[in-house]
Amino acid sequence: MLTIGYAAQTAKSPLAPFKFERRALRPNDVAMEILYCGVCHSDLHQARDDWGFSMYPIVPGHEIVGRVTEVGSEVKRYKVGDAVAVGCMVDSCQECDQCRKGEEQLCRKANTQTYNGRDRITKEPTFGGYSKHLVVREEFVLRVPDALDLAKAAPLLCAGITTYSPLRTWNVGPGSRVGVIGLGGLGHMAVKLAAGMGAKVTVLSRSSDKEADALELGADNLLVSSDKDAMKKAASSFDLIIDTVPVRHDVSPYMPLLDIDGTLVIVGQIGPIDQTLTMPFVLGRRRLAGSPIGGIAETQEMLDFCARKNILPDCEMIRMDEINEAFERMERSDVRYRFVIDMASLS
Amino acid sequence: MLTIGYAAQTAKSPLAPFKFERRALRPNDVAMEILYCGVCHSDLHQARDDWGFSMYPIVPGHEIVGRVTEVGSEVKRYKVGDAVAVGCMVDSCQECDQCRKGEEQLCRKANTQTYNGRDRITKEPTFGGYSKHLVVREEFVLRVPDALDLAKAAPLLCAGITTYSPLRTWNVGPGSRVGVIGLGGLGHMAVKLAAGMGAKVTVLSRSSDKEADALELGADNLLVSSDKDAMKKAASSFDLIIDTVPVRHDVSPYMPLLDIDGTLVIVGQIGPIDQTLTMPFVLGRRRLAGSPIGGIAETQEMLDFCARKNILPDCEMIRMDEINEAFERMERSDVRYRFVIDMASLS
Repeated sequence: MLTIGYAAQTAKSPLAPFKFERRALRPNDVAMEILYCGVCHSDLHQARDDWGFSMYPIVPGHEIVGRVTEVGSEVKRYKVGDAVAVGCMVDSCQECDQCRKGEEQLCRKANTQTYNGRDRITKEPTFGGYSKHLVVREEFVLRVPDALDLAKAAPLLCAGITTYSPLRTWNVGPGSRVGVIGLGGLGHMAVKLAAGMGAKVTVLSRSSDKEADALELGADNLLVSSDKDAMKKAASSFDLIIDTVPVRHDVSPYMPLLDIDGTLVIVGQIGPIDQTLTMPFVLGRRRLAGSPIGGIAETQEMLDFCARKNILPDCEMIRMDEINEAFERMERSDVRYRFVIDMASLS
Repeated sequence: MLTIGYAAQTAKSPLAPFKFERRALRPNDVAMEILYCGVCHSDLHQARDDWGFSMYPIVPGHEIVGRVTEVGSEVKRYKVGDAVAVGCMVDSCQECDQCRKGEEQLCRKANTQTYNGRDRITKEPTFGGYSKHLVVREEFVLRVPDALDLAKAAPLLCAGITTYSPLRTWNVGPGSRVGVIGLGGLGHMAVKLAAGMGAKVTVLSRSSDKEADALELGADNLLVSSDKDAMKKAASSFDLIIDTVPVRHDVSPYMPLLDIDGTLVIVGQIGPIDQTLTMPFVLGRRRLAGSPIGGIAETQEMLDFCARKNILPDCEMIRMDEINEAFERMERSDVRYRFVIDMASLS
């Protein structure tokens, strides 16, 4: 099937219209018309080859919501017209210990990324959700519950699951004391999801400017990280801190905020972190961890949880041809809190 | 009671004989004659004020084994003649959540260190085990099982429990894949204890020089950390790595060795660690943690475990007047694997 999308042809070129083929349906494939696609920081990083492994042309987009238009002969779970979603991965080996326990994101043979990956069968490059159509094997298609507004659900597929997964891994529930560093696409979802789980949520921010926003998102309070007295008073008061900062930074000021056996989990940054001190680790048995997205079952669980709790990201809708401007605004953190492309704008 | 020990009078002076008073017995106190005292790296650090909080004169020593000579009127668990031991702490608040669950080492009001601390009642400085006698409240006295050789048991009280505690915290048991970095006082105990728990134990070392030693201690193999191919092959193959390196170092080469959800736990170093990369954390949900000593109940459990499994440190016995030379040899890692002072040599 011929489709159209937006692609970067080189690390230096802006995204521009790009026609390409989606594969003919395999027996276990689902074809969908893409209605909305969220704009993730990693789209920008990979369009510009910031991580050094981009293959061009690159069609970004891994927060994808749409409707089924056709299904392969063996597909059982979906039918034409179903509201569906696709996240950061479109395949995995399906055989290793991780895949067997529903942790396809941790597949021993590496999952296949929704874009900038290679199809496991044909080895052709994968193209993402900044496009009109998508073909994905059934096992990597999610169902969007009726209660979720399709126009806003897209960012759940990366920003949502990336923050939901560590909240579940570290057993957050009623009474948990959760801190969130950074109030962007991931951070604002972390606040909403942790609050939805019944946790006491604190946003950590360099200034008090974002206090009203934090409270509106569902946080119980905001802790100003540049206020040394306040930080000292908050020592040992968190079970889990979700660190969504997307750039290099120093975790040292935050580690003492963790209670004994508490964990600071990095979800927003790939790269070096500054040197840190072992004292708070050793004396409080504190931990520093990382977490990627979640598995398919957990992603479905997250979508169902959001439907039940009426949790949706705060989105700013854009047209496909506004994507380059949106990238620039994202770099200035000038978005509350996630851009979503309305694919009706692409023809 | 007047007693004699060895003290540093300043950060620059060698340890030398020092007469001082042990307190008169309180109703819940146990008095003991010290028979053996292990020599810990932290003794050297604190004698020389490397950590900046030493109070002089300082009598080091927190790996203490001896026999009860007198008990206070309310003491129930010990009687004159019992073989007993004291580790790194001699008191705690006994009221906080941590003390209540037997984690006195994590006492919210800070435990009282065996030396270089202050008595909770009189505020007088505490003096450690490089001495003939000790008076400690009953709750912080351990029982040395009959099966343990008193002359070798002393290092269990710090090197033993500091490695036993993380093995228990991270649920090491039969089949666990445990790595040990550093083969000194702590490292050699980590190997023996992990092997005793049924784990598959690998010593990580810069060269293969220590292979025979590692195997003799109970390790299954030695991985040469300077061998890039071997390190690559060992990726994702450990559940837990105990890092006993006592000086500043880079944990980056070791993080990818952890399997998914694996933890590298620092037990040997207080200070900065080099910058590291978030990639192995995020992509494998790996964790970096620290761990101090264990609680009193866990320390007793460790002594009983060692008695049952016939596990004892490898010790080199020294006279009290050889302590300064022993410190110098420790700095050169010239000890297999722990110095123990025979207190019969002090009069």
